[in-house]
Amino acid sequence: MLSRTSNLPIGVFDSGVGGLTVLRALRELLPDENFLYLGDTARVPYGAKSPESVIKYALQAGGALVQEGIKMLVVACNTASAVSLDALASEYSPLPVVGVVKPGAEAACATTINGKIAVIATEGTVKGGVYQRTICSMHPDAEIIAHPCPLFVGLAEEGWVDGELVEAIVARYLKPLFAAFGDVKPDTLVLGCTHFPVLREAIANVAGSSIKLVDSAETTAKTVKNILNEAQICNVGDVKGKISFLATDSAQRFAAVGGPFLGEKIDTSDVRVIDL
Amino acid sequence: MLSRTSNLPIGVFDSGVGGLTVLRALRELLPDENFLYLGDTARVPYGAKSPESVIKYALQAGGALVQEGIKMLVVACNTASAVSLDALASEYSPLPVVGVVKPGAEAACATTINGKIAVIATEGTVKGGVYQRTICSMHPDAEIIAHPCPLFVGLAEEGWVDGELVEAIVARYLKPLFAAFGDVKPDTLVLGCTHFPVLREAIANVAGSSIKLVDSAETTAKTVKNILNEAQICNVGDVKGKISFLATDSAQRFAAVGGPFLGEKIDTSDVRVIDL
Repeated sequence: MLSRTSNLPIGVFDSGVGGLTVLRALRELLPDENFLYLGDTARVPYGAKSPESVIKYALQAGGALVQEGIKMLVVACNTASAVSLDALASEYSPLPVVGVVKPGAEAACATTINGKIAVIATEGTVKGGVYQRTICSMHPDAEIIAHPCPLFVGLAEEGWVDGELVEAIVARYLKPLFAAFGDVKPDTLVLGCTHFPVLREAIANVAGSSIKLVDSAETTAKTVKNILNEAQICNVGDVKGKISFLATDSAQRFAAVGGPFLGEKIDTSDVRVIDL
Repeated sequence: MLSRTSNLPIGVFDSGVGGLTVLRALRELLPDENFLYLGDTARVPYGAKSPESVIKYALQAGGALVQEGIKMLVVACNTASAVSLDALASEYSPLPVVGVVKPGAEAACATTINGKIAVIATEGTVKGGVYQRTICSMHPDAEIIAHPCPLFVGLAEEGWVDGELVEAIVARYLKPLFAAFGDVKPDTLVLGCTHFPVLREAIANVAGSSIKLVDSAETTAKTVKNILNEAQICNVGDVKGKISFLATDSAQRFAAVGGPFLGEKIDTSDVRVIDL
């Protein structure tokens, strides 16, 4: 069989820097691939905005990445995945478009034993009910309760990620959520926003050892790898893949705030500012 | 002398709902005036965005209000006032354009006795240094230290405005700020973001009774009244003035979140959604 390859980058889109946690997992699993990451930092956050606005922004971002030349689009933002995936797939067909919600839901279903799954996300993601519907379609007996934690985004961007005060804020959101399950507590907690893995330790401390935390970064990376293999569009270059960054606001701030999310230093000179 | 009058509304612009605290003060002082409030809720918050983006957004918002027909423009957002006032005044001349920074600085200078003034604001406002420069021009001997408190915006919008946890968050920002003044503490704390007055009680509890809190809402309203009188463009109608609202994202969410900032219920039907 003749194998096709492509050294075009994989486009990764997020409302800001949160999606860099997904890019980090993609890099680990797919070190040979090139990536073009777009953070819509001029309009971040999407979490409390209406589906109409988020769809409009996602289509503009997708269009910019397609114009740059990409072989696949990863929507590394839960809010945008929740509402704009169909619009993106239809607009840029036949480009493969992958979101983070389905992989996150798969991870939750693979993790839970008692079928009780708690989901924390932004207001937009929770209200849209996409995690509830997606998990339910895979695991019809699951009991799923979702709760918005909008302040976690601010905490993550402020770099307040551990300590007593952060755990107190986390507890204020999680205690009522866990209590809503009644006598049998959930055994799985989905981090349904790409900002939240930065707070993983504080969330784990509050949730306790009986609750497993899952996020969509790793399962999304596996999904992307499968699609690359099936479509035979892997990059088989013998050098390590490169990342380029696009942002809609200050390159300097993107590099400074983004580093901890990506887990490696970002040079301001690697960030190009574009207008959407 | 022949007095001119105008029943055109006063345009009030903010990045979101925070500026409704300014509108509230305007309403109290100028009950006969009509107001047209525009909240750029699709792109809120401005606080961590670059001056270039904020200027662009402010000019678009100003343009929309001018097109609707206004007799004066009030920029009820500290971040936008800090960076875009000159651009707005020049673009829409001879329309009077009033920001909230100068009135806030005037209030601080009128309040301080020991000349030590602390300022809390968004990252953008603090970094731009506009409060420091403006206060310094009025009170050259003042010692001014400004510190960003980005999480306060999230707290205010989340409705977490009092209690032990909120005061602990407030303290984490304020203690190092007050300590930076050394032995003689500030006697004045400027709330340099229109979201912050919603947290006034928690901030006052942490600051203690020796520190007076000032915000720009009341002094901005006085400035607006003076300009109306000088330009002889007051509304002398005998009915109470009306408020109309424009938002760039969901009317429903604007009405729900905005009510507590304005101090009165907002009907969704009074909010018109526009695209900037």
